Amino acid sequence: MNTEELELAINLVWVMLGAFLVFFMHAGFAMVESGFTRSKNTLNILMKNFLTISVSAILFLVVGYGLMFGSTFGSIVGSDGFLLSGVEDIGFFVFQAMFIATCATIMSGAVAERIKLGSYIFIVIAMTAIVYPVVGHWIWQGDGWLTILGFSDFAGSTVVHLTGAVGALVVVLILGPRLGKYEGKKVNVIPGHNIPLGALGVFILWLGWFGFNGGSTLAADPTLVPMVIGTTLLSTSAALVASALYTRFRYKKVDASLSLNGVLAGLVGITAGCAEISLGGSIIVGLISGVILVEGIRFFDAKLQIDDPVGAITVHGLLGIWGTLAVGLFSTSTGLFYGNGFAQLGIQAIGVLAVILWVAFTIGGFTYVLNKFVPIRVSKEEEIAGLDFAEHGSNAYDFKDTLLTNDEIESPNLGLALADRLNNIPVGNTERKTI
Amino acid sequence: MNTEELELAINLVWVMLGAFLVFFMHAGFAMVESGFTRSKNTLNILMKNFLTISVSAILFLVVGYGLMFGSTFGSIVGSDGFLLSGVEDIGFFVFQAMFIATCATIMSGAVAERIKLGSYIFIVIAMTAIVYPVVGHWIWQGDGWLTILGFSDFAGSTVVHLTGAVGALVVVLILGPRLGKYEGKKVNVIPGHNIPLGALGVFILWLGWFGFNGGSTLAADPTLVPMVIGTTLLSTSAALVASALYTRFRYKKVDASLSLNGVLAGLVGITAGCAEISLGGSIIVGLISGVILVEGIRFFDAKLQIDDPVGAITVHGLLGIWGTLAVGLFSTSTGLFYGNGFAQLGIQAIGVLAVILWVAFTIGGFTYVLNKFVPIRVSKEEEIAGLDFAEHGSNAYDFKDTLLTNDEIESPNLGLALADRLNNIPVGNTERKTI
Amino acid sequence: MNTEELELAINLVWVMLGAFLVFFMHAGFAMVESGFTRSKNTLNILMKNFLTISVSAILFLVVGYGLMFGSTFGSIVGSDGFLLSGVEDIGFFVFQAMFIATCATIMSGAVAERIKLGSYIFIVIAMTAIVYPVVGHWIWQGDGWLTILGFSDFAGSTVVHLTGAVGALVVVLILGPRLGKYEGKKVNVIPGHNIPLGALGVFILWLGWFGFNGGSTLAADPTLVPMVIGTTLLSTSAALVASALYTRFRYKKVDASLSLNGVLAGLVGITAGCAEISLGGSIIVGLISGVILVEGIRFFDAKLQIDDPVGAITVHGLLGIWGTLAVGLFSTSTGLFYGNGFAQLGIQAIGVLAVILWVAFTIGGFTYVLNKFVPIRVSKEEEIAGLDFAEHGSNAYDFKDTLLTNDEIESPNLGLALADRLNNIPVGNTERKTI
Repeated sequence: MNTEELELAINLVWVMLGAFLVFFMHAGFAMVESGFTRSKNTLNILMKNFLTISVSAILFLVVGYGLMFGSTFGSIVGSDGFLLSGVEDIGFFVFQAMFIATCATIMSGAVAERIKLGSYIFIVIAMTAIVYPVVGHWIWQGDGWLTILGFSDFAGSTVVHLTGAVGALVVVLILGPRLGKYEGKKVNVIPGHNIPLGALGVFILWLGWFGFNGGSTLAADPTLVPMVIGTTLLSTSAALVASALYTRFRYKKVDASLSLNGVLAGLVGITAGCAEISLGGSIIVGLISGVILVEGIRFFDAKLQIDDPVGAITVHGLLGIWGTLAVGLFSTSTGLFYGNGFAQLGIQAIGVLAVILWVAFTIGGFTYVLNKFVPIRVSKEEEIAGLDFAEHGSNAYDFKDTLLTNDEIESPNLGLALADRLNNIPVGNTERKTI
Repeated sequence: MNTEELELAINLVWVMLGAFLVFFMHAGFAMVESGFTRSKNTLNILMKNFLTISVSAILFLVVGYGLMFGSTFGSIVGSDGFLLSGVEDIGFFVFQAMFIATCATIMSGAVAERIKLGSYIFIVIAMTAIVYPVVGHWIWQGDGWLTILGFSDFAGSTVVHLTGAVGALVVVLILGPRLGKYEGKKVNVIPGHNIPLGALGVFILWLGWFGFNGGSTLAADPTLVPMVIGTTLLSTSAALVASALYTRFRYKKVDASLSLNGVLAGLVGITAGCAEISLGGSIIVGLISGVILVEGIRFFDAKLQIDDPVGAITVHGLLGIWGTLAVGLFSTSTGLFYGNGFAQLGIQAIGVLAVILWVAFTIGGFTYVLNKFVPIRVSKEEEIAGLDFAEHGSNAYDFKDTLLTNDEIESPNLGLALADRLNNIPVGNTERKTI
Repeated sequence: MNTEELELAINLVWVMLGAFLVFFMHAGFAMVESGFTRSKNTLNILMKNFLTISVSAILFLVVGYGLMFGSTFGSIVGSDGFLLSGVEDIGFFVFQAMFIATCATIMSGAVAERIKLGSYIFIVIAMTAIVYPVVGHWIWQGDGWLTILGFSDFAGSTVVHLTGAVGALVVVLILGPRLGKYEGKKVNVIPGHNIPLGALGVFILWLGWFGFNGGSTLAADPTLVPMVIGTTLLSTSAALVASALYTRFRYKKVDASLSLNGVLAGLVGITAGCAEISLGGSIIVGLISGVILVEGIRFFDAKLQIDDPVGAITVHGLLGIWGTLAVGLFSTSTGLFYGNGFAQLGIQAIGVLAVILWVAFTIGGFTYVLNKFVPIRVSKEEEIAGLDFAEHGSNAYDFKDTLLTNDEIESPNLGLALADRLNNIPVGNTERKTI
């Protein structure tokens, strides 16, 4: 190979590594979303995550790539390259195909435990076939109107995260809260069922984000790449520390769930600016991200009574906005704090507003109409029984074989011990709610 | 470095990345196999998976590599390179060493919950020291008779997956079904105990497969690699959608376990042809894979009463055959549907038949003899107690500390609540060790 | 790009891949440590692992990198480069930042289930801000006194693992064993609560170690890298086989927990010598590692009554020493067994002793003083209730929704079955200890 071919090859390896890591983020989302919700809805959440990436990859091939990266029609939307006709860089398609599902899967966490699988898939189709590619065209295709305006979103705080979160918000508004979540002014906590699995998901997301942000360089640039990885590492570290300390200050305990969400907050918060914020700046961005996360989740839950089981609207929406605006503040080349005035910050705000309006209008309208024809929410009985039983006829877990200890297995009272755990049905006591 | 050295270096990084991802597939197999079986056999399955990769890596160094890639003896088997003597490309050895365990570990899922650990290891030794390397020699060493014939199996639908599945089938025939699985014509479902863990395993396998198929290019080729990754992504996406929809049509519910297996079906189905099937073709291959999966598992389970706890024989066997034949149909250079006639399809069929006969005869014969000397199946008592207790003297799980809710911990009846969960053992039984 | 830039780019990709894999090791540590301990302390362990990497990454930026890799002050410690001032190679910083947390997180496993979160973080700060960087300066900065002496520790058997383990040991000595662990001469086993999660962690660590050892080449060297990956794979495989067989011989059963720890033993054992030990030599190193692991854990637990819930002191300490000395025995260029005499072995021993003394003195002294001011251990009540409840006010798991089977859900006795699992409080039986 000559040096040009070698350069192609090395960039290919870097972008493929990034693509693989972004793909793996879907495992992270699936684990976070199932771990932080109830065990009776776990299969359903897993299926939603798997179907999201599958449906959106195929749609991106057929229509999304063309709308997003095709020749521009009025700086609004792409107009060719459907089914990749005329497209040569398949590696870029693969990398972007991994991204698109990320946007859609953000919604699955917020609508968990009460939306029908089928309705969810229809909304995913709307998001990945049209809504997200249009946003991507505005911001990541060279001729898009926000690109021309100077809007900067390196790896997608707005393109991916804010877009997904606004979609989540409008669907949740139509869907309503889970049964038993709010009783008048009282806010009930519905704890997740498997936090270690969720924590593993957070680790996987953090790992995957190095590919999400790092791969967005699209080239193995020895100057740019380490900065991107460094800011991603440090912003996230700072956000975790901030959310842990802030929950200790706010609630007297280091809250594990909020701290884990703090990791995600730090990641979303640095995504737009990871290539143009300094290492020190990224720590400040992260610290602020951690505090926004804690207050944001409280605000949506306790004040607005908007039920978002995994905090996705805060993590991807509020932090997506913060990450986008942070470019206007902390960018070493255009940011306010580096003496460049308010220009970039203003442009960032315009982009944020435009995307919120576009996504809210399209996904909101689509879901509203969809819900008129076929209600998107499961019945009360199905919600109480759990979506795993209602939609898949099965359970996610069955530990009955190991509810006995080794000692019991060896004891002469094996039958009694078993009865205790599995069979010993008392009289009365049948009123307890199971939601 | 000059350009030649740089080319070596970049290909090295690509192949090492592939090797790491293929290694990680073993985590995926371990999670899928333990998640989809009962909790009382979990430690045993984990040990089998860990031991499989360890034993086969060492055997591949000592004998397997030589038999597979050594100078050919009559186009049948390699004859030198044992202990890597004379071998220079250690990177290629490492990559292939990760592959070999994949083939062996396929068997562990099918024989789960009833085979002795020791017997299983002996069968793994036979498979990885001799049976698999011979198949590999036929197909992946330039002088092998199937290579010469024109047989095409880019990343191993036949070499790895069909080989493992035929081994699994013959061992299962000797082993028999799990206790309670079949009662006359009645087929009982024995559900897995931890589907989220299994689903994580599926995600890990999908991720690892990008290295399995992608790394098989052995070079960071900017044209070939993205196509391979693209077909792998799209075939799998299509297979998942197909199996989800098909179970909905067939059983009225979207079956989560079958849909997750649909992912693996799509992966095995595109493995042979991932480098020579178009992106559109890969979607069709995947759609068919998803349907074959659902019907195949039903056929083996309900019709033949062959008990395969994780569906490995269908996933790796039927789909391995389908993937191999799909090359003869969908290859853009040799396939029937691209106007190239039946030649390639015939060659593919010959290879499939040859591998089935070779593996069935060798692994079948070996296991039959082994079983004559020492029964390969655990006793009924051990099977009922679970292999974790019988073979490892321990349990995989112990949740007794968290069977209480926070409310109960705070309640005045803590002792009583605890007693309910841990102690409600009839009078007399107070001696039980608690640690 | 010209060939020099291409070389930079390819080395960058390799080192970044290594950095990502080392980062992922923290997910592995978190899963191993939570899986192998009790479910009531799981959130706490997860938080410790997340906070360790976050705090140490920030500290490494501020002070650690300078102390470790800055211009030497008397071959003892670095004296510039704080806040990366004057540092150009950010990629190297990122890679090393992933390493530093590894050292600290080793301690979290040994001190699990009884140390306060706050105290632990203070010890992590001491370790990562000062103690570890000084060791690193001695051994990995070209002007460090052990480097000058000829001490060889390629990827950190001593720098990372022994350092972490000695820190763990002295903190454990101050902390004491968990309640109920030892009763006079009687040693109680406190089994882990989720071995599959721990096993997944072991797989993740094994994967990550390919980056830990492989990335330590700092260059995509087509000769060196495959050897490093090969020795890492084979040593680990051998260690697993050895520990499985040895527990079978010693305890009549293949012990799953010890075998899984055997994997880690094989990894630590080859870390120092992975670049200068032959493939065959690595198998011997691994076999010995597997046996040392089993006897070491028994020795610390049964003989010394030092309570180390996950065996970290043996895995990282004893095996760290063994791995370091193994260079003096098996190095093909300097090892005793290759006819090079005892010189290297002696130097390795000096390094081991120096690091033990330095870490024991500093971490031991710091922790002793800290404990005088604020006891580092939680109260008995908190330990019994579990650190999740005591420090985070929450539970890691809640399976109540799926403790029912599908059959029960469909049965007319649903309420009764639920009551059995959640409410059935019997009379009496309140005396049982719950630890």
